[in-house]
Amino acid sequence: MDRLTVDDIEPLCLGATLLGTGGGGDPYIAKLVAHQALEEYGPVDVVDAKDLPPDALVLTTAIIGAPTVILEKIPAGTEFVAGVKALASYLGKEPAAIMPIEVGGLNTLIPIATAAEMGLPIVNADSMRRAFPQIEMTVFTLAGVPAGPLSVADEKGNQCVFETTTNQIAEALARTAVIQLGLANSISCYPMTAAQVAEHAIQDSITYCMEVGRQLQAVKDGEEGAWERFLNDSGSVEFFTGKVVDLDRRTTDGFARSTVILEDLHGSDATMRIEVQNENLIAFLDGEPVITTPNLICLLDHETHDPITTEALAYGNRAVVIGMPCAPEWHRDGMLDLVGPPAFGYEIDYVELPR
Amino acid sequence: MDRLTVDDIEPLCLGATLLGTGGGGDPYIAKLVAHQALEEYGPVDVVDAKDLPPDALVLTTAIIGAPTVILEKIPAGTEFVAGVKALASYLGKEPAAIMPIEVGGLNTLIPIATAAEMGLPIVNADSMRRAFPQIEMTVFTLAGVPAGPLSVADEKGNQCVFETTTNQIAEALARTAVIQLGLANSISCYPMTAAQVAEHAIQDSITYCMEVGRQLQAVKDGEEGAWERFLNDSGSVEFFTGKVVDLDRRTTDGFARSTVILEDLHGSDATMRIEVQNENLIAFLDGEPVITTPNLICLLDHETHDPITTEALAYGNRAVVIGMPCAPEWHRDGMLDLVGPPAFGYEIDYVELPR
Repeated sequence: MDRLTVDDIEPLCLGATLLGTGGGGDPYIAKLVAHQALEEYGPVDVVDAKDLPPDALVLTTAIIGAPTVILEKIPAGTEFVAGVKALASYLGKEPAAIMPIEVGGLNTLIPIATAAEMGLPIVNADSMRRAFPQIEMTVFTLAGVPAGPLSVADEKGNQCVFETTTNQIAEALARTAVIQLGLANSISCYPMTAAQVAEHAIQDSITYCMEVGRQLQAVKDGEEGAWERFLNDSGSVEFFTGKVVDLDRRTTDGFARSTVILEDLHGSDATMRIEVQNENLIAFLDGEPVITTPNLICLLDHETHDPITTEALAYGNRAVVIGMPCAPEWHRDGMLDLVGPPAFGYEIDYVELPR
Repeated sequence: MDRLTVDDIEPLCLGATLLGTGGGGDPYIAKLVAHQALEEYGPVDVVDAKDLPPDALVLTTAIIGAPTVILEKIPAGTEFVAGVKALASYLGKEPAAIMPIEVGGLNTLIPIATAAEMGLPIVNADSMRRAFPQIEMTVFTLAGVPAGPLSVADEKGNQCVFETTTNQIAEALARTAVIQLGLANSISCYPMTAAQVAEHAIQDSITYCMEVGRQLQAVKDGEEGAWERFLNDSGSVEFFTGKVVDLDRRTTDGFARSTVILEDLHGSDATMRIEVQNENLIAFLDGEPVITTPNLICLLDHETHDPITTEALAYGNRAVVIGMPCAPEWHRDGMLDLVGPPAFGYEIDYVELPR
């Protein structure tokens, strides 16, 4: 992929929203943001980090907050370029490219829109190839890359820059700032050289989103064998098809948390419970954990196969629940401490997906 | 006053602690910090803002947090210069002088120690001529001077820079950062030119602390008529002499709050209740408010006439309670909205001190 145009938005957003595993932001808003930017500023070049000058500065941008809030307090748009510029100014260096920090409806498309507005290329990489709720939850942390200096900005002109001794403190400071600034803000973190991105990021994640999106579009279009092909190619496993019969949603500590219970749509007594902190974290089948973070738990509409986000999920929704393996780059020392179930407060063991 | 030496620390700290009106930090720690700095780096020049080049940058420093915490997590020392340097770096300009932001045991002497360490003069001024718990509570806010860009730093190397649209948001962001960083940190706020300081600050507040301290020293030394002279010169009124019979102390929302009840030491049924948020805010005599913020409520030990701070006050303490008029610079439009009783959540009217 060389460049992104308005024609790429639909499949890219479809794939990114699925890989957002419930989080990463509403796809409808995401598409509007991307459409507007690509129409106004033109296509965005997609580059590999290794093709940039090694010492070129790569800055990220993302929306940070609670998806339940973001759905109502939608991005103004100005906060993303403002946040990137605030960090660039603090660093005293201009960025050569923009990179998504995670994959998700908004968090894949907003960096592209920001790149368009700033006239910069987008790096075909990210730090999760899914979405996670906390900013220390990246493969960069596993590699020892600091999250700071990082900036948090709002649409009114408030800006914060944090430089911290650990990525956990970076998360704590950014989170409390975001709670003060309305729970829907921009963040620019993990400033890196292109050489660092080439070494430590998950490469090709935009391409991967696009591929997943195209396969899912084929499913939506009713192509013969498309669902099986999508499951097979992504290594995913279908676990449950159910109806949402209980949905306990609370926005606490700066996150959208929920507990979702689905009853088997086919009439058995089986139930699935899913625990959510912005993203889907653990799926229990009849009380037993069957899919655990960092593997992806994705809900798709039973009829349309559209991915369903945390904040859009509603009582009565009929959904297919699949487990998808996380990017292989996650499998290294420290993974479970950083993003396994105990990192979110669940005293349960990580479960491998069946092959 | 031209320069401050170790000989000035005792009277300066005595006056500053009294004017801290319960807050501003422990005088014993303050004296240790100042002694060490003045012995190591030599005396500090005291300058008037009007004698500096008009466009010279003046930066402030202070300890921010809850006095109850600061008493246990005492300053490491490194966080003050670090915070000033972080802000200077963000501004891209070197400071020409340091200024206290408020008056208090620690918050008058720490800026002097910081000035000594940085080889800079101290400006004979501040923004309150007392202590207040929130950073928007300055005469600078009344004059429309922004609190930001401002920095918050800890002793471990964590640094935050905030640039905000209002001083109230600056307070909110700094406070939540401080809660994350241990409730005893450094802050450098209200960066100004010397011309702005000359126009908007309360001038001569270091000299004023020293004068109050010398008068109080005379009282402590048992000089004939010294107490009456001190009360008269400062416009203060003695309201009550009592024994602390109830002390309800809680550290919440990043502040040390307490309710203090004193019974008349002379045996009448009269009681005084004092409400505290880091600083003494309202004194009620038999249920009626008799001294209210922004006027100063100062507690002095009944025997020694040492000022008693919020965090040092103990059950059984015998104290004299005086009311002291706030600096005349406070009396302008907006004072009561910013620092009157309702600004702290008390639905009572401001009370003038009797003359």
